[in-house]
Amino acid sequence: MHNFKLIISYDGTNYQGWQIQKNGITVQETIEKAIYRLFNENIKIIGSSRTDSGVHAKFQVANFKIKTQLTCQKIKLALNKYLPVDIVILKVEEVSLDFHSRFDAKEKNYKYYILNSRDKDPFKDKYSWQVPYELDILKMGKEANCLIGEHDFKSFKAKDKKEKQSIRKIYDITIKKKFSFIEIQIKGNGFLYNMVRNIVGTLVDIGRGYLSIGSMKNILKNKDRTFAGPTAPAKGLFLEKILY
Amino acid sequence: MHNFKLIISYDGTNYQGWQIQKNGITVQETIEKAIYRLFNENIKIIGSSRTDSGVHAKFQVANFKIKTQLTCQKIKLALNKYLPVDIVILKVEEVSLDFHSRFDAKEKNYKYYILNSRDKDPFKDKYSWQVPYELDILKMGKEANCLIGEHDFKSFKAKDKKEKQSIRKIYDITIKKKFSFIEIQIKGNGFLYNMVRNIVGTLVDIGRGYLSIGSMKNILKNKDRTFAGPTAPAKGLFLEKILY
Repeated sequence: MHNFKLIISYDGTNYQGWQIQKNGITVQETIEKAIYRLFNENIKIIGSSRTDSGVHAKFQVANFKIKTQLTCQKIKLALNKYLPVDIVILKVEEVSLDFHSRFDAKEKNYKYYILNSRDKDPFKDKYSWQVPYELDILKMGKEANCLIGEHDFKSFKAKDKKEKQSIRKIYDITIKKKFSFIEIQIKGNGFLYNMVRNIVGTLVDIGRGYLSIGSMKNILKNKDRTFAGPTAPAKGLFLEKILY
Repeated sequence: MHNFKLIISYDGTNYQGWQIQKNGITVQETIEKAIYRLFNENIKIIGSSRTDSGVHAKFQVANFKIKTQLTCQKIKLALNKYLPVDIVILKVEEVSLDFHSRFDAKEKNYKYYILNSRDKDPFKDKYSWQVPYELDILKMGKEANCLIGEHDFKSFKAKDKKEKQSIRKIYDITIKKKFSFIEIQIKGNGFLYNMVRNIVGTLVDIGRGYLSIGSMKNILKNKDRTFAGPTAPAKGLFLEKILY
């Protein structure tokens, strides 16, 4: 038996997220179908992050176990041949049998892109959230700082999700502007459902002046989703990297 | 009567090129429909470059004449409201009545992107040509130099097009590599149908070693399309800028 770790890049535009579900095609099932075509076996792959509908991934990680004599390079080439162009396997690597892409993840790194302009960009529409108001990114950065560390992020948790505990650790948040694009990078040990998008939506409310200085601290303290800003659209979010 | 100059950016993926034709939707007709919705008049717009099916544009230029009291800014906002997200008007400017976006163009600037990698990139597939072979870009650059200046570019003209004369002037060609992407920039006073894509296809044949040193000079001299390389795919080509 071999355990293979996959590094996967995908454009989430045409998928109902990572995880298999009743309605719509998901990234996971598309890869599992390619694996079936290659090995003629129904294999379940384990994804490190269950990205939501429309969310993209630069370096998602997954793993699956199988008996085979194929090399990693052959598996990579064959899977890419069977996959559509919006899902690409960047690397196949053999790992120890006890490696689990989700349980073993130490750090997850997400990036969110805001197109801060009154003009749309036809090439970036699927990969960013267009915000036409002026945003004060210095203020956004200062307010974001209070999120760093271990906190109960209940205020940023999707209301309809029953996650047992909402304590997570954020290692770092950085906000940079390059031309018209604002890049918000968030690193943490894990994220609640919609947590990154809810933090970004709140930061935009802060940046445009809807919320005053000190708001983020209060929102965090209140542990109530209704105090935070709106959920930023999925299309601006990229799962960037997973560290083990 | 006013003459308005438009600066337009579009993702050409879903269009049968710029110019109106019998089959398929074009960029020109999509903009003319938006103008019709705004002014309730059938107005013909003149595009500077008739980009081909699947070719993109960063800063295409067009102009149209109309009697109106609307300001440039109002026209821009209204047209963008009526246009799909893959066509964006970046600027509307009033120009003198004798301005003609095609006849008055002094320099056209195209960029072509090659993804030089064995791996696909799900985010760049619509915007580049994936070439998995190693390419010698120094050799490509040296061979490209002989194209600079005024020449008869008959060897790079699509065979089925009856353009009366094939003499054009290329001002500059530069080839740069950034990570896995090769950017080929070509500036000239005008280009024949498929000329940029045929030059790029020939450069790739040179870069991968199919054609030897001195080939480009011979191909140019022969004035025969069959000597040049293949036509590079449309999706890697961007109309970058028009100078007046």
